[in-house]
Amino acid sequence: MNTIQLDNQGRLKHFLGIEGLRRDLLLSILNVAKSFITVDAQVVKKVPLLRGKTIVNLFFEPSTRTRTTFELAAKRLSADVLNFNISTSSTSKGETLIDMLRNLEAMHCDTFVVRHEAAGAVHFIAQHVSPSIHIINAGDGWHEHPTQAMLDMYTILQCKGKFNHLKVAIVGDILHSRVARSDIHALSILGVSEIRVIAPKTLLPFGVEHLGVKVFNHLRTGLTDVDVVIMLRLQRERMQSALLPSAHEYFQYYGLTEEMLEVIDSSAIIMHPGPINRGVEIASEVADGSRSVILQQVTNGIAVRMAIMAMTLGVIGEG
Amino acid sequence: MNTIQLDNQGRLKHFLGIEGLRRDLLLSILNVAKSFITVDAQVVKKVPLLRGKTIVNLFFEPSTRTRTTFELAAKRLSADVLNFNISTSSTSKGETLIDMLRNLEAMHCDTFVVRHEAAGAVHFIAQHVSPSIHIINAGDGWHEHPTQAMLDMYTILQCKGKFNHLKVAIVGDILHSRVARSDIHALSILGVSEIRVIAPKTLLPFGVEHLGVKVFNHLRTGLTDVDVVIMLRLQRERMQSALLPSAHEYFQYYGLTEEMLEVIDSSAIIMHPGPINRGVEIASEVADGSRSVILQQVTNGIAVRMAIMAMTLGVIGEG
Amino acid sequence: MNTIQLDNQGRLKHFLGIEGLRRDLLLSILNVAKSFITVDAQVVKKVPLLRGKTIVNLFFEPSTRTRTTFELAAKRLSADVLNFNISTSSTSKGETLIDMLRNLEAMHCDTFVVRHEAAGAVHFIAQHVSPSIHIINAGDGWHEHPTQAMLDMYTILQCKGKFNHLKVAIVGDILHSRVARSDIHALSILGVSEIRVIAPKTLLPFGVEHLGVKVFNHLRTGLTDVDVVIMLRLQRERMQSALLPSAHEYFQYYGLTEEMLEVIDSSAIIMHPGPINRGVEIASEVADGSRSVILQQVTNGIAVRMAIMAMTLGVIGEG
Repeated sequence: MNTIQLDNQGRLKHFLGIEGLRRDLLLSILNVAKSFITVDAQVVKKVPLLRGKTIVNLFFEPSTRTRTTFELAAKRLSADVLNFNISTSSTSKGETLIDMLRNLEAMHCDTFVVRHEAAGAVHFIAQHVSPSIHIINAGDGWHEHPTQAMLDMYTILQCKGKFNHLKVAIVGDILHSRVARSDIHALSILGVSEIRVIAPKTLLPFGVEHLGVKVFNHLRTGLTDVDVVIMLRLQRERMQSALLPSAHEYFQYYGLTEEMLEVIDSSAIIMHPGPINRGVEIASEVADGSRSVILQQVTNGIAVRMAIMAMTLGVIGEG
Repeated sequence: MNTIQLDNQGRLKHFLGIEGLRRDLLLSILNVAKSFITVDAQVVKKVPLLRGKTIVNLFFEPSTRTRTTFELAAKRLSADVLNFNISTSSTSKGETLIDMLRNLEAMHCDTFVVRHEAAGAVHFIAQHVSPSIHIINAGDGWHEHPTQAMLDMYTILQCKGKFNHLKVAIVGDILHSRVARSDIHALSILGVSEIRVIAPKTLLPFGVEHLGVKVFNHLRTGLTDVDVVIMLRLQRERMQSALLPSAHEYFQYYGLTEEMLEVIDSSAIIMHPGPINRGVEIASEVADGSRSVILQQVTNGIAVRMAIMAMTLGVIGEG
Repeated sequence: MNTIQLDNQGRLKHFLGIEGLRRDLLLSILNVAKSFITVDAQVVKKVPLLRGKTIVNLFFEPSTRTRTTFELAAKRLSADVLNFNISTSSTSKGETLIDMLRNLEAMHCDTFVVRHEAAGAVHFIAQHVSPSIHIINAGDGWHEHPTQAMLDMYTILQCKGKFNHLKVAIVGDILHSRVARSDIHALSILGVSEIRVIAPKTLLPFGVEHLGVKVFNHLRTGLTDVDVVIMLRLQRERMQSALLPSAHEYFQYYGLTEEMLEVIDSSAIIMHPGPINRGVEIASEVADGSRSVILQQVTNGIAVRMAIMAMTLGVIGEG
């Protein structure tokens, strides 16, 4: 993966996944993102860094929310943005994916932000575009969602000031979660002291221990003494496919309630990639409580995506 | 309503409804709009007033036309614009409305332009957003459509030079019309001498007289000697719900024909919020005739919406 | 057509069709487009020529690809862009086409880029808009697709350096092709020495010889010694309507294969308006081969559309 994400000088060219990236590169992204947090709070929230660049949102799987954060990030860098919802585009005319990409390249588009329901599809696209194009993974199947992981890391650093000596728990449907996978890679590269995954057995990937995580099936035990809790969104489809009994029962065993918070550190933070299912994986009091940094994550998401767009396009170094 | 629309200094913060607003505030809006009419006619129709601001069109009820006027107004002020057609957005993922708003706030969006089929929904949203957000009502149920009322007032002032001593008739489906409600409030605040509503009894709200209007069921009588005629669009659904016999019969009794124009003042103007139903509520000769100012209303709509966006955002005072 | 496309001084006002345009005007467009090819390759691909202008894409027939090229061309000229997919717009509210146009005019939009499934619809619109509006035909029925023809001409000039002494073959469904019609007019005005059309009899318009073309039913014979091959896209609907036996059989007789290339000049170029049907009208080896300029056409399409937008708006002369 590394060989395709980086250019000859080791600089970020595409952003496809966290796995295999260097620690200093992740820290660089967080550092550049920090400079955009200021931009975002300014009265005029716009910098001309990507003026004249064309960013294309290629969403093969619908997502208003994630697309919007990329669209905003691009516009605040003064780029032009094209949105494609691919089910309605010319692929329906029988054009191949590669031909569609070739055409967008020929129109001198610069960056494709790609979401796809198939793991590896974004990687495939990066292998087949011309050298002038940059690819950013906005989520591919169960594989990775690396910009989400980077905004999670930004939020952790912002709140806790460091990564070492942290215990981080990821709770919920680990099996189907690209967020969990990217977060585990990032936390591991950035050197937290312990990564825990907490889930019922049916929602854990086979051999998950080999990723260097501790596995818990019991929520209260798993949460004990952690500094960071990352709750995952429960996809309602899982219940229909018999992996879970019911939303109600899930909440009883794995829902994050105020009562559960007793076992975690008093300065611990609660995170969630959104959109949240209130009363399914998280109680409203917790989601809206003082330890929740869920909306801070959303704010950081814009800055982190601005950083990744600017760095892959080479207009900002890793300095 | 007033307490929520204005800040502590009495300046416009949200624009939710005309009801209860001060006369001088309405005149301020018309005055600022006038300065944008010039912008709109310039070769370069763009001013950098809202550069770096993000305007979100949140349309819970589809409307290409109204959304377009807000989008154009925002772009001509150099703002970035996001369009959400909510039926297709993440609310379908089970996210609550409030969570969606919180997320857009966290992305540092500045103004939400909201259309909703439920009266009061826009007011509810304004009560629940954070203090940094501005809400503009683009039509909520049968309640208010205040930017339409302001462009109507602008057009009246532009054509007649004053509000006092004017007789204004509103003709059509008063019962279901948010335009009528906002217009009645605005005309009353701005001090026209007489407001008439002309409609069949089935299309009049109960107790409409208490709004300070004179009620007429007969078109010719109601129009006699008026200076301004505001025709309302007839929703075809009304005929299916048995409130009206047929479009043909409606036109016979309430359609504005050339013959009807005999009874109004020779310098009277004909208005309509559009889109017009030719041959249903208005004859083509009247819609396209010399007294019609229907397209002038559309032009004024852009300037009025620019004024309201700039004033609620505080970049232009009430000078 | 000429009288409506040009103003009193003979300058381009609308761009509706190639038929009847002067040779020097076509050369002017190619010349202006050339200046934008540089823009397109710059690091900042943006010029402020149309800043403050509003371009409206009015697509009555869906087309992501063509709309995107117009959208990109407009954005790279710094214009504001509105996209309308008309089936979902207010025409569904019973508004007439003319009323919709009048409203967009009243909003001070400047240029309408129109695609419509009915031949002549774009011409009709140009006849009915106000004098301040410019119309660009993005394809109307089987009639014309003049911006496609101009990008084809640009590509031919770029590759061959001249038009005279060229033999050009157009292959495929001539009968239903607005591209073929516009190309034939352009090639004829620009003075190529021979225009050939190659198609089965069922896909040739009655009396096509009167357009000044040579007709061939046999591919190999028709291609012999040509300098330029323009392949047309085969609409799959034609096979259902019994005009063609099957895609497989079509490819056997009219598909451009490597073997067929033996008879054309070694420096001949292969063109296609896209999207291509691999293995239907063109073999993959040919589409991706060294003589194919298909993607160069896409790149040129942006520059040519920029030129036509700027020229019709009068911000660039024919100099």
